Amino acid sequence: MHEIYLDWAATALPDSFALKVLKETSLECYGNPSSPHSIGNKAHDLLESGRDLLAAQLDCRNDELYFTSGATEANNMILFSLVKRALILKKEFSSYTIIISALEHSSLWEPVLVLKRLGFKLKVIYPNSMGIIEAATLAQALDRQTVMVIIMLVNNETGAVQPVTELAETVKTYSQKSGRKIIFHCDIAQAFGKIPVSLHKLHIDSACLSAHKLGAGKGIGALFLNKQVEIDFLYRGGDQEMHKRPGTENAPGIYSFAKMAEKKQHALQKNLKNAARLTDYLISEIEHLPHAVILPEQRTAGDTVHYSPYILPIAFPPLAAEVVVRVFNEQNIFISTGSACHSHKKERTRVLESMGIPAHLTASSIRVSTGTETTQADITSFLAAVKTNILPLQQQIESDPHNTGKGGGF
Amino acid sequence: MHEIYLDWAATALPDSFALKVLKETSLECYGNPSSPHSIGNKAHDLLESGRDLLAAQLDCRNDELYFTSGATEANNMILFSLVKRALILKKEFSSYTIIISALEHSSLWEPVLVLKRLGFKLKVIYPNSMGIIEAATLAQALDRQTVMVIIMLVNNETGAVQPVTELAETVKTYSQKSGRKIIFHCDIAQAFGKIPVSLHKLHIDSACLSAHKLGAGKGIGALFLNKQVEIDFLYRGGDQEMHKRPGTENAPGIYSFAKMAEKKQHALQKNLKNAARLTDYLISEIEHLPHAVILPEQRTAGDTVHYSPYILPIAFPPLAAEVVVRVFNEQNIFISTGSACHSHKKERTRVLESMGIPAHLTASSIRVSTGTETTQADITSFLAAVKTNILPLQQQIESDPHNTGKGGGF
Repeated sequence: MHEIYLDWAATALPDSFALKVLKETSLECYGNPSSPHSIGNKAHDLLESGRDLLAAQLDCRNDELYFTSGATEANNMILFSLVKRALILKKEFSSYTIIISALEHSSLWEPVLVLKRLGFKLKVIYPNSMGIIEAATLAQALDRQTVMVIIMLVNNETGAVQPVTELAETVKTYSQKSGRKIIFHCDIAQAFGKIPVSLHKLHIDSACLSAHKLGAGKGIGALFLNKQVEIDFLYRGGDQEMHKRPGTENAPGIYSFAKMAEKKQHALQKNLKNAARLTDYLISEIEHLPHAVILPEQRTAGDTVHYSPYILPIAFPPLAAEVVVRVFNEQNIFISTGSACHSHKKERTRVLESMGIPAHLTASSIRVSTGTETTQADITSFLAAVKTNILPLQQQIESDPHNTGKGGGF
Repeated sequence: MHEIYLDWAATALPDSFALKVLKETSLECYGNPSSPHSIGNKAHDLLESGRDLLAAQLDCRNDELYFTSGATEANNMILFSLVKRALILKKEFSSYTIIISALEHSSLWEPVLVLKRLGFKLKVIYPNSMGIIEAATLAQALDRQTVMVIIMLVNNETGAVQPVTELAETVKTYSQKSGRKIIFHCDIAQAFGKIPVSLHKLHIDSACLSAHKLGAGKGIGALFLNKQVEIDFLYRGGDQEMHKRPGTENAPGIYSFAKMAEKKQHALQKNLKNAARLTDYLISEIEHLPHAVILPEQRTAGDTVHYSPYILPIAFPPLAAEVVVRVFNEQNIFISTGSACHSHKKERTRVLESMGIPAHLTASSIRVSTGTETTQADITSFLAAVKTNILPLQQQIESDPHNTGKGGGF
């Protein structure tokens, strides 16, 4: 049976091009990039070609990119560098405030909670009802203890695009006025390769990215760190990655990631147009259905300014999200209840709740996320399953209010 | 020209079997293991099959293995968990002592130096002239502040096999007597898949391992953590790896690592015998040459009790190690000056110096490390290059003491 994969935001289908590059370079450039001979040099050159190529796609300098095992590691590196800084400078953790948006992925949200537990001050800033952090909200939160601001570019659950350039400017302005250096860290994992991203233009200090979100290998990512920012990271080992990130570099995996990024950038506008067309079709069809709600409700077809067309949350009240996912699963249609990386159940609805979406909608919200191989036929199949399998279930439960849809029948 | 690769300890030749498994599972089990649908479940099942399989090879429980980006990450996780522990318990860092052997790899040595800088107490214990840490040395170092003991299984520069079971027993005995829990952490990256390793029998608390040392992918490794030890790690994110290590799991890479480990375990005795035969041949030939010295000088052919036959350091005084590597490189023979992961130049000779080897030998020592594809012909070619290219150079320099061999001519 044909698999209809609509969970690209969790991970993209692996691209056979990336696998081919990985295999070829694994065999050709097999050395340890740190080894002092030709075989090592060949692997080292491959690694640096990957860095150059990726930097060109991101519009940053090649010596601003450090390869990691993924976005999660990059995020933790940035956050826990604050612990080292405080300890080395013998400062109280409580003299540092971190501002974080309520929209952030678990890989930033959870380590920030650890920092809070250790004594750091935390300020959470909330988005408006469209799921967007406003510059005025951020401006109000900034204070003389702020050391870091964390706001993502594209939200992984709603697709909402944050006005990062404006937000970063707000921080820069405050920073210059107060004479206090504040790091602006931005998660671009759901943005890069999907919507136009120029690190140079974003004016941020650091960013995390992930290879598998683009169809390259899992276990590969990168940290961007603006050359003007000096950060001393916690983990240590060999000399790799300009002393910023130890461990034998996965040169073939990194090069394959960079080649994949290049491929994505070349086709970005074409893919973006196609994704917008599919999402617009999906939104306009969903809008005609009773009891199916696009989240947030203000989102309209054609709004590519505020939303990435690759991600669309839909609620089917009163069905629980887990039930909806299961019903689709039985039809070989694969969607998710939200982020794949929930740390606990309450986490699942954190982002949508922060936008003020009521509980009966957040409880039933699912995420449809598309990718380069998604077709109009996939969306049509999804809509057919909504009509054939979801709507009757909603009606059945509405006529029997004791049935929450959580029963074992599905 | 045929490449003679004798730097397997830096990284093994990639095994085409591992690459095949990686490619197939990447395409078949492409989901995010945390996704709540069949595609996610398939990836999750693959991941757990990998864990089961690897646990079987290591002789440990499957819920004692946590996949990481490599041995370096596993080592840093263990070490920096001490920072978290001290901070949560509000203990002074200086109330914790870490005992580390002078033999350890940069990925333990360097982070331990960071801990020292932060205030932790450090005790370095030294090996005997054979490169082996004696239980009596460890027993003397243990004190009531000791929280962790770090001793590797097979040294990556000399091949010396540490008596880890005995060392771990020494710690256990002290621990029971003093009522103080001490973590025994062991780097098994150069041991696993090469010499027999049973984690159950080693009686250690934690261990790090690396996939690429076995011919599987770079950027993959694991942390073993004895079920009886509870450690709270610093980095956080999603629920992955039983909450111990966040980030989307590279299920295909992990499974390919486990399958590769199984292959290595099956052929372990055969490969070990072959490696011993090659090394014995190399040792006996080198012994006949003037000015070529096996390190340590006590090491004899046939001693597989104290040394892994996969690693052999040789010195060619008065030539600088860098010169020797370069001369071999010109003959398409690839050896290294020691560990590929030196943090700085002084690091290169740290291990050999700790054994009391004099500077004129450590300065000229190189490491020959073999693997499953190394042949007798490779060793013969190496020996021929020693006679044709290295010995004349040694003689030339000896007859002209102003020439250190560091000149541009080589």
